[in-house]
Amino acid sequence: MYDTIIIGAGPADITATVYAARKKMKTLVITENIGGQAALSGDIENYTGYQFITGPELAKKFEEHLKKFDIDVKEGTEAVSVEKIDDYFTVKTGEGTYESEIVILATGRKPRMLNIPGERKFKNRGVTYCATCDGPLFAGRAVAVIGGGNSALDATIQLMAIATKVYLITRNKEMKGDTVMIEKVKRSNKVEILRDAVTKEISGDKFVKAIRVVVNKTEEKILDVKGVFIEIGSVPVAIPVKNSEEKLKVTKYNEIIVNEHCETNISGLFAAGDVTNIPENQIITAAGHGCIALLSAFKYISKRPS
Amino acid sequence: MYDTIIIGAGPADITATVYAARKKMKTLVITENIGGQAALSGDIENYTGYQFITGPELAKKFEEHLKKFDIDVKEGTEAVSVEKIDDYFTVKTGEGTYESEIVILATGRKPRMLNIPGERKFKNRGVTYCATCDGPLFAGRAVAVIGGGNSALDATIQLMAIATKVYLITRNKEMKGDTVMIEKVKRSNKVEILRDAVTKEISGDKFVKAIRVVVNKTEEKILDVKGVFIEIGSVPVAIPVKNSEEKLKVTKYNEIIVNEHCETNISGLFAAGDVTNIPENQIITAAGHGCIALLSAFKYISKRPS
Repeated sequence: MYDTIIIGAGPADITATVYAARKKMKTLVITENIGGQAALSGDIENYTGYQFITGPELAKKFEEHLKKFDIDVKEGTEAVSVEKIDDYFTVKTGEGTYESEIVILATGRKPRMLNIPGERKFKNRGVTYCATCDGPLFAGRAVAVIGGGNSALDATIQLMAIATKVYLITRNKEMKGDTVMIEKVKRSNKVEILRDAVTKEISGDKFVKAIRVVVNKTEEKILDVKGVFIEIGSVPVAIPVKNSEEKLKVTKYNEIIVNEHCETNISGLFAAGDVTNIPENQIITAAGHGCIALLSAFKYISKRPS
Repeated sequence: MYDTIIIGAGPADITATVYAARKKMKTLVITENIGGQAALSGDIENYTGYQFITGPELAKKFEEHLKKFDIDVKEGTEAVSVEKIDDYFTVKTGEGTYESEIVILATGRKPRMLNIPGERKFKNRGVTYCATCDGPLFAGRAVAVIGGGNSALDATIQLMAIATKVYLITRNKEMKGDTVMIEKVKRSNKVEILRDAVTKEISGDKFVKAIRVVVNKTEEKILDVKGVFIEIGSVPVAIPVKNSEEKLKVTKYNEIIVNEHCETNISGLFAAGDVTNIPENQIITAAGHGCIALLSAFKYISKRPS
């Protein structure tokens, strides 16, 4: 029986684990990989304390930090389900079932993909899913933003200040999103909006060089861009949670609903980071959230009759 | 007119500033010092990504990160008041008045005082609130640490390596804090823990010479010490906020009330980190909070008619 099982090993999980270790909680980490989405980022300039670090380097720092402590880690293991039985939890994996007093779910998110040719090949070679993370790398270059909502507008507004040219490409007849943001985008002489436009292919050699777009169903365009920002949303990585009393509450986007203490509606089940309804999905926010989840979990266990 | 004025330069502020700089917001940081309470910490093992770093070292990393960007910083400057006039803010300092679209308050916390005879008189003459800053001055001497939690344990662990004797004095029946730290303290033959003990007075001539402590409600002890480290928690650093419509809402502990977006009840005024009602006061949580505050502020400005 563990004190806590932490599912995932992104910034939220690793921070939770560091705090758990320092509180001598008996802890098991179950994860497919270490680093989470942070490991997938290009160059990171906004993890406070590191002026400049790449995603894989930061993930490596996280891994070293995790492994410094005497903690059980099942790496390369997928958690298949979490079940609350009486006042305890069981977590099933392909390799076995583990029991714990509490569980922290911090499985993160994954970007929604376009699923077009070239997208996988040029990922982190010009194709990115995060303007905040990677925008500054495209200073003085032409880029494309693909998407029709606020994320795409937000990415465009950020890139207007950095890039020489921003193609904003939406399948819709008009951009959807905040009027003020749309107006700002429209006022910029750097931005060209392509409406009713479907991106068909991303091409290049080592890095992205161009995209092929079909506008108004018929007109084909080749746009020379060095960056492709795919901003069509992301999806939480969900693990089935079984509980006889009540279902785990999630938003309509399938994000786990937590309060400011990272408590879910199921007592003893905590969640942190991008899998939750936290309003921003950044490495540093996930890390902070993981700390709160663990400290809340520690208080929960401390208050239980033992 | 700035886009944003950030008051303070602890982990929350510096994270907010890094995000502001990357969004090309015109930003002014007003602060008395850089690093906040992080700079006063001893050894830090729980800032995710750094296995081991001292408080001053981490503060230095933060400062370097801040100064990497082209941001106006008024260092050594105290913000005297914040006022909302129409839809904008003015921030007064001893050196001048600055205007901004939004303000982020992240002034952190300061040490709580014991309020006993001798405390003010001997401040910086043996009485200190920072083991990291002042510990080395007490090499080869006997000292007292007053407090019952992690801060007191941290101070004690630092002083164990420096002083000849450390009295750890707590009002509680047992120390509260991380098990790892409690164990370290208990293993030291230099440390004597006085439980259920109330410090009544600090005395000396030019410098501290002794403290008077009442143990178990009745037993009075005079302890010969040259240093007194007061580690009984902290209080928020409040800056007067003027607003014609409604007062800034705070908790009974004078912490600024923010929602999950770091919005206060005054539109355009955001707050982050230890000065707020965030449930945990850790470096990593403050940093994450600063990120949320800035991104919320950026959305607020983006949505304004310009």
